[in-house]
Amino acid sequence: MNKKPTLFTSLSPALLHLTNLKDAIVVIIDVFRATSTISTALFNGAEKVIPVAAVDECKRLGDEIPNAVTAGEREGKVIEGLQYGNSPAEYPRAFIEGKTLVLTTTNGTKLLHMAFERGCAEVVTGSFTNLSSVCEYITNQEKNVVLGCSGWKDMFNLEDTLFAGAVIDRVKERFIIHDDASLMAQQIYRLHENNLYKFIQNTTHWHRLAAYGLQRDLQYCITHDIANVLPIFKNGELVVYQ
Amino acid sequence: MNKKPTLFTSLSPALLHLTNLKDAIVVIIDVFRATSTISTALFNGAEKVIPVAAVDECKRLGDEIPNAVTAGEREGKVIEGLQYGNSPAEYPRAFIEGKTLVLTTTNGTKLLHMAFERGCAEVVTGSFTNLSSVCEYITNQEKNVVLGCSGWKDMFNLEDTLFAGAVIDRVKERFIIHDDASLMAQQIYRLHENNLYKFIQNTTHWHRLAAYGLQRDLQYCITHDIANVLPIFKNGELVVYQ
Repeated sequence: MNKKPTLFTSLSPALLHLTNLKDAIVVIIDVFRATSTISTALFNGAEKVIPVAAVDECKRLGDEIPNAVTAGEREGKVIEGLQYGNSPAEYPRAFIEGKTLVLTTTNGTKLLHMAFERGCAEVVTGSFTNLSSVCEYITNQEKNVVLGCSGWKDMFNLEDTLFAGAVIDRVKERFIIHDDASLMAQQIYRLHENNLYKFIQNTTHWHRLAAYGLQRDLQYCITHDIANVLPIFKNGELVVYQ
Repeated sequence: MNKKPTLFTSLSPALLHLTNLKDAIVVIIDVFRATSTISTALFNGAEKVIPVAAVDECKRLGDEIPNAVTAGEREGKVIEGLQYGNSPAEYPRAFIEGKTLVLTTTNGTKLLHMAFERGCAEVVTGSFTNLSSVCEYITNQEKNVVLGCSGWKDMFNLEDTLFAGAVIDRVKERFIIHDDASLMAQQIYRLHENNLYKFIQNTTHWHRLAAYGLQRDLQYCITHDIANVLPIFKNGELVVYQ
């Protein structure tokens, strides 16, 4: 019998260096809202999503790539010089199908670069919107897995941790899981899985984004499997895993 | 009416820099076992406890200070050249009364130095063994509070987080608490407060220490108020707050 692969949870990019990423699949999690928007755009037929950290790079790629849409927000408003925001609601099929979304995302992009620098095998993105795709993929690959929460400026956040817990709750029999972060994440998810929408309203991020009138976005972002595809990172681009 | 002070939880020394420590009380938490041993030694009449990071400094202070006891462990054994270990059971009143305990503790001492470098007002130590003293002190001071979990080599751990949650559960009405780490800590404590001994046996640290035959130590370390004094750091030494 083969030994099961391991699964670890990193609660913040500032803790990622403590986990061995060598040859592992890293699931990047940024529930509010980058990884929810990424799965939504791809689910609705976007050809690819290019995640970038810097606004200038976003603009440059938007100019270079045919049929590109540039997107990014600061404090709830579209960044000057970009075209759209970070809301999944901005990317219905009628608009995004066949296009390339160049998305500015600080926390998630940072984590993506760290993951490759530390020798991971591959990066996929996860959020409640594609929970089943993530679980199916990681159980089929038989590789070690690291669930990487993006947090907020390196701070711990609950929504990413809750998603990590949701994954662990579904796949735990298929992995060796020994770290306290995974145990905590699963417990807190189990405690609130039936009242996620209510509980999430206690989080810091909810308060920040709800102040911009984004409650509907946030509700969407905790809806299980509403954009159920698996974004996988290949050659600098996120595309749907086939 | 005065504005309430704030309370934040830092889940690891690697996240402490994200919290404003200026003029705050920092509660250093290292449940298994440094801060449990510190409160026990002081409760049993030790004159003071001097926490040090390096073994050499521990030996040097042990030679210089009259009536000193040097202590420190690596992998469950007393470090060569030191006299005693990290177990609270080694410091009954008949032995430790009137003495100075020079204690080697890697995770906790690191956090202590970071806290002062970042401008905190004072440092106290907390563990389940002195829960009530910690809660009473921080509610009386009317200063901002940071609960600093020591973790294990910067990794998140559950036992320190559970203690942070126990404090928050008792003092929450007296502070402004908005961070997700505090919310999570309180929730996980509430979930397990009536079966703490059973739950803690799932943690990484339990498995590591129980392998050295330290189950009784660990059970002691989660006993509420069994050594209920407040260790406060003054001039390089931890003494009982009077």
